[in-house]
Amino acid sequence: MHSFTQMALVNENFLKLPGNYLFSDIAKKVEKYKAEHPERRIIRLGIGDVTRPLPEAVIVAMHKAVDEMANKETFRGYGPEQGYDFLREAIIKHDFEPRGIMLRKSEVFVNDGAKSDTGNIGDILDINNRVGVTDPVYPVYIDSNVMVGRTGNMTDDKWNDITYFPCTAENNFIPEIPHERIDMIYLCYPNNPTGMTLSREELGKWVDYALANGSLILFDAAYEAYIRENDVPHSIYEIEGAKRCAIEFRSFSKTAGFTGLRCGYTIVPEEVKASTRNGVEVSLNQLWNRRQSTKFNGASYISQRAAEAIYTPDGKEQIAGNIKYYMDNAKIMRSGLQKAGYKVFGGINAPYLWVKAPDGLSSWDFFDMLLNNADIVGTPGTGFGPSGEGYLRLTAFGTREDCHEAIERINKL
Amino acid sequence: MHSFTQMALVNENFLKLPGNYLFSDIAKKVEKYKAEHPERRIIRLGIGDVTRPLPEAVIVAMHKAVDEMANKETFRGYGPEQGYDFLREAIIKHDFEPRGIMLRKSEVFVNDGAKSDTGNIGDILDINNRVGVTDPVYPVYIDSNVMVGRTGNMTDDKWNDITYFPCTAENNFIPEIPHERIDMIYLCYPNNPTGMTLSREELGKWVDYALANGSLILFDAAYEAYIRENDVPHSIYEIEGAKRCAIEFRSFSKTAGFTGLRCGYTIVPEEVKASTRNGVEVSLNQLWNRRQSTKFNGASYISQRAAEAIYTPDGKEQIAGNIKYYMDNAKIMRSGLQKAGYKVFGGINAPYLWVKAPDGLSSWDFFDMLLNNADIVGTPGTGFGPSGEGYLRLTAFGTREDCHEAIERINKL
Repeated sequence: MHSFTQMALVNENFLKLPGNYLFSDIAKKVEKYKAEHPERRIIRLGIGDVTRPLPEAVIVAMHKAVDEMANKETFRGYGPEQGYDFLREAIIKHDFEPRGIMLRKSEVFVNDGAKSDTGNIGDILDINNRVGVTDPVYPVYIDSNVMVGRTGNMTDDKWNDITYFPCTAENNFIPEIPHERIDMIYLCYPNNPTGMTLSREELGKWVDYALANGSLILFDAAYEAYIRENDVPHSIYEIEGAKRCAIEFRSFSKTAGFTGLRCGYTIVPEEVKASTRNGVEVSLNQLWNRRQSTKFNGASYISQRAAEAIYTPDGKEQIAGNIKYYMDNAKIMRSGLQKAGYKVFGGINAPYLWVKAPDGLSSWDFFDMLLNNADIVGTPGTGFGPSGEGYLRLTAFGTREDCHEAIERINKL
Repeated sequence: MHSFTQMALVNENFLKLPGNYLFSDIAKKVEKYKAEHPERRIIRLGIGDVTRPLPEAVIVAMHKAVDEMANKETFRGYGPEQGYDFLREAIIKHDFEPRGIMLRKSEVFVNDGAKSDTGNIGDILDINNRVGVTDPVYPVYIDSNVMVGRTGNMTDDKWNDITYFPCTAENNFIPEIPHERIDMIYLCYPNNPTGMTLSREELGKWVDYALANGSLILFDAAYEAYIRENDVPHSIYEIEGAKRCAIEFRSFSKTAGFTGLRCGYTIVPEEVKASTRNGVEVSLNQLWNRRQSTKFNGASYISQRAAEAIYTPDGKEQIAGNIKYYMDNAKIMRSGLQKAGYKVFGGINAPYLWVKAPDGLSSWDFFDMLLNNADIVGTPGTGFGPSGEGYLRLTAFGTREDCHEAIERINKL
């Protein structure tokens, strides 16, 4: 094929990706509105990032780690690509053992954030695997698969070779188990953007499906620290058999406010396997280890010490305080919106509220209505997939004062 | 093909990768030797990591950044995937403008280290591109291409679909310009592992070749801060036309001792293009931006502030002091080895020395000889590719005392 060209070839799959204009479209609308109404104070409830400062225990740990880097005796150069033992051990001891999940250190891969690993995990899997995602969905799952050619082309806002599991009020946001075989299933619970969860029983159905069909579940548990109810699993490994069919992604970003520090981790159990075309089973733990050793060089030592600190008694208490702050915001917004007559989902075990647009409005109509009449900015649900139409995502990451004022304004509509 | 299997499929390209046993084989030999000779003090000159603590300016900047994260007013959450403006601007102003290279901010992508980006850059390129590498070589360039199926299979320690450019004493480590078309050419100068460089004239030949053949040069300049001679280019963009054919990888790891902090950057000029199969030219800057926005979430804020600090007057002076320390080590080792009768390459513009094994010994024989007779550990050249046979890599990252003692021991051989 080089006879047709005199240049190196691009990966043409990238050219299939539509422009990602959601947040820039929102920004443009808000800017225009501000220019026309300079006297109004806009409240941003679309923000998907933490706003509370890092807890004291984390700050102390980072200062200490910085000082270590200043002395020859305690300086740290390259760390293990998989993460330092002190952090891997703390993760196992505090995030899994209390829930009865036993893990080996070799199954914990510390990384620079869940976005990287949910995007990169496809590296170790065949490009002909069939992908399934819930709809609405965190766009990285889809876009990273588009980039390697795993999705086919797009028709009517859907990729031909992706199976979508609609999650709407009609099915109480519980995705239906597919009737056909799917190889790679992305599940994110508690869910971004809907804020909804799966019970142990519902998640168990997916694990059973995966075991029966040789599927791999890519389970994103970035928001597990926000779970408040007892029947909601924090880890997919609480479900019998999940170690044989699931990889789990965890993040310190939302758990401990680390969005600027870049540290998370991925669990790849030694039991989880995929197969060659000839039917030979292969350990994904070994392949992922090889991938990380070759294309990653470990997370920052300072960030790893910061992460270790959240497992101390002080650290635990302090991050719990921040999470409570956000979840109290969620409660205020949820009950306020309900009292004002809105249908609200999520916000009980997750910092996201998924609000049904009233009167059959579209996502963007609802967005415009809140901006124009209440000076409130949300995120249109269509930005997360076709089944997001008719919804708006609000987040609990703002200030308490803004949450109260937003509800007051909405009550006056 | 799913009818043949009941499981998700692995990326079988990973199974082609031979085990990477170089450093574990070395470790085993050293452990065995230590057990047999507990009284001897081993000097490790194979180490590929910095050992000097971080300079004061960097430490001060990190403490300040940590304190910012403790306060609501100065807390930073997600940063731009491409890096903060303060760092991108400092990079352009201090690393490029003084050499007459003008860059746009949009051309600088801050990352978590050069290993990630040299490994990931292939994401945006077609898997049928022909790859060329110097031999010996930094293994990441090859292994990351094996993983996507760009290399074919291995015969006699070489991948069938990779073109190797041998670099040995016979050609003074100057790779020969290929006679056929190559799409993606990896060049690392100053070179790891040989420590050798290309002059402006020699690098110019590669740029001319790339422009004539529509090739893309992937230029790894991780060691540019070690350059001491005037005629050696620090950036490929010092060469006319390189912005149309080259992507450059830079690292703070060896420049400023950041191996534990994880921060580097990649330059993707807006002029550099590759093509679709139909001959449509595509901006690689846009594709890389999309790749990074989807599969990366920025480098740690603390690490980016640390990097910014190396461009202050104090920071510059302090990192220059560390580099001088290592390069004085290199000088001591180089002249000592030469006086002892060894043929030594590199070590003038790079922290690596590439020592020819005496008397026709193999790399491993030479390794064993130094370990058994002088208690010195190097790295066998064969670990970096077939043309590394008959050489040993020594690095200048040890202590001054060890360098002196190593030379004394070698003189007694």
